[in-house]
Amino acid sequence: MSIVVVGSVALDSVETPVGKVESALGGSATYFSTAASFFTKGVKLVGVVGDDFPQEHVDFLRSRDVDLTGLERVSGKTFHWSGRYGENLNVAETLSTELNVFETFAPKLPESYRDTQYVFLANINPELQIDVLKQVRNTKLVVCDTMNLWISERRAELLETIKHVDIFVLNDGEARQLTGESNINKAAKKLLDWGPERVIVKKGEHGSASFTRTSYFAAPAYPLDSIFDPTGAGDTFAGGFMGYLASTDDVSESNIRKAIVYGTVLASFNVEDFSLNRQRSLTRAEIESRFDEVRAITQF
Amino acid sequence: MSIVVVGSVALDSVETPVGKVESALGGSATYFSTAASFFTKGVKLVGVVGDDFPQEHVDFLRSRDVDLTGLERVSGKTFHWSGRYGENLNVAETLSTELNVFETFAPKLPESYRDTQYVFLANINPELQIDVLKQVRNTKLVVCDTMNLWISERRAELLETIKHVDIFVLNDGEARQLTGESNINKAAKKLLDWGPERVIVKKGEHGSASFTRTSYFAAPAYPLDSIFDPTGAGDTFAGGFMGYLASTDDVSESNIRKAIVYGTVLASFNVEDFSLNRQRSLTRAEIESRFDEVRAITQF
Repeated sequence: MSIVVVGSVALDSVETPVGKVESALGGSATYFSTAASFFTKGVKLVGVVGDDFPQEHVDFLRSRDVDLTGLERVSGKTFHWSGRYGENLNVAETLSTELNVFETFAPKLPESYRDTQYVFLANINPELQIDVLKQVRNTKLVVCDTMNLWISERRAELLETIKHVDIFVLNDGEARQLTGESNINKAAKKLLDWGPERVIVKKGEHGSASFTRTSYFAAPAYPLDSIFDPTGAGDTFAGGFMGYLASTDDVSESNIRKAIVYGTVLASFNVEDFSLNRQRSLTRAEIESRFDEVRAITQF
Repeated sequence: MSIVVVGSVALDSVETPVGKVESALGGSATYFSTAASFFTKGVKLVGVVGDDFPQEHVDFLRSRDVDLTGLERVSGKTFHWSGRYGENLNVAETLSTELNVFETFAPKLPESYRDTQYVFLANINPELQIDVLKQVRNTKLVVCDTMNLWISERRAELLETIKHVDIFVLNDGEARQLTGESNINKAAKKLLDWGPERVIVKKGEHGSASFTRTSYFAAPAYPLDSIFDPTGAGDTFAGGFMGYLASTDDVSESNIRKAIVYGTVLASFNVEDFSLNRQRSLTRAEIESRFDEVRAITQF
């Protein structure tokens, strides 16, 4: 099955303790669809870029079989994020956010996208997420992400969005911020009360946890000695997760657990280099090998 | 097989967001031997108490089949720790540390203790830990713990101790402090270079990780909605861990993984009440049930 993803396509300038990169390919929809493309062909991307967006990036996404019918090209500059990570790679310091053409982004789904059963609402304004949900029909699984900005600036709209999604994916800091609960288990239960059938909390180096009203799954992080650049890890996780689910078209608890591990694996590769560079050379065999490793390190 | 544990026997006054307790039974050797007693009879305790130490606590330890031949009773007051935990239950604020009779503690192992194969050096001055190692013969598994105080004040002695132990158990903050590495995997590899065959890093709500030169195991925490009092969790973890190992007398990788999960389970119960109160009513059936739950929440 295919997937629709709505999110940002960006150029990122990133500095980490091990190096820096200028105006590299980035954006939540980009990371997501590339990761998903290891499992599912024809991921349908909805986003916007300016006229400065390099053709090579378009070519790269096409080479990953990403459907770009929904990628608007408008006059102006592409969304440009600049950030820096210190020794604590869990927290990015934003140096500048130039929304540019993304500022007036109003997602319009091409007719060919509207019957897609798997939908990922990447981290965009929840008002737009709700608007996207009005444009899709016959969904089987809707997953959404968010960020601290929307929790503080668009709280009511975000709560409205999560009423209508099946799975809410967010990080531990966001779960605490949104619920006011310092305990992640309590926070997740509160989020479940607000609508979604499942909440997946991403905890960076501490792995992730998946909650439903009746189940709990703890996934470890893949152990890495160093992280080159954490940018895009969350979207890559979501892409591996949904790519695997859509390719198997099975949303049972046991298959969702496997999908979480595939998401973990994809994210672990992505942080090994800047931008999407590691994903450019990644193979399905490498993914399967690391998936087996995650199984081995959790067996007892 | 039996176990020798050398550590503190204390009276603790603890305040947490949900309540407080005054001069309750505490101390690393106490938590350890009680937890181990669910698996192994006759844990041999080495410690010291003052003449104010209540007989009921001695009776409790005896009821858990703990061998108190090595518990010195000397004139003076028992070690008394007072601390407070805020909303972040990972960090204790020490209000006072009255070492009292513990200040001049020099562990002397009774002759009947010296051939014990399993030895746990709880968090005491590493000079004393080394001294204990000179008093034991024919050990099969020596495990040691430490704390931030010894890392800053007795670094050289601590590095000497860990050269002579099989397993070094410490928490993530201590691993970072001792090695200067912010990445836990790198920190653990450095610790392995310094001597021990295995390093187990406890990460509180994030579970634990076990490292050898050739293996890695990630154990989740048992998910709890609230923590009543984290005091003694680390020593209880170690007690469950070593109690299970000694009872099975099997230190293979696969059995050590099971032992880590038993340690996790014991610690998860201990934090559900003040002092050792939860362990007082705990049953082996409850332990087994939670062990099975940990297996279920990690399966994929």
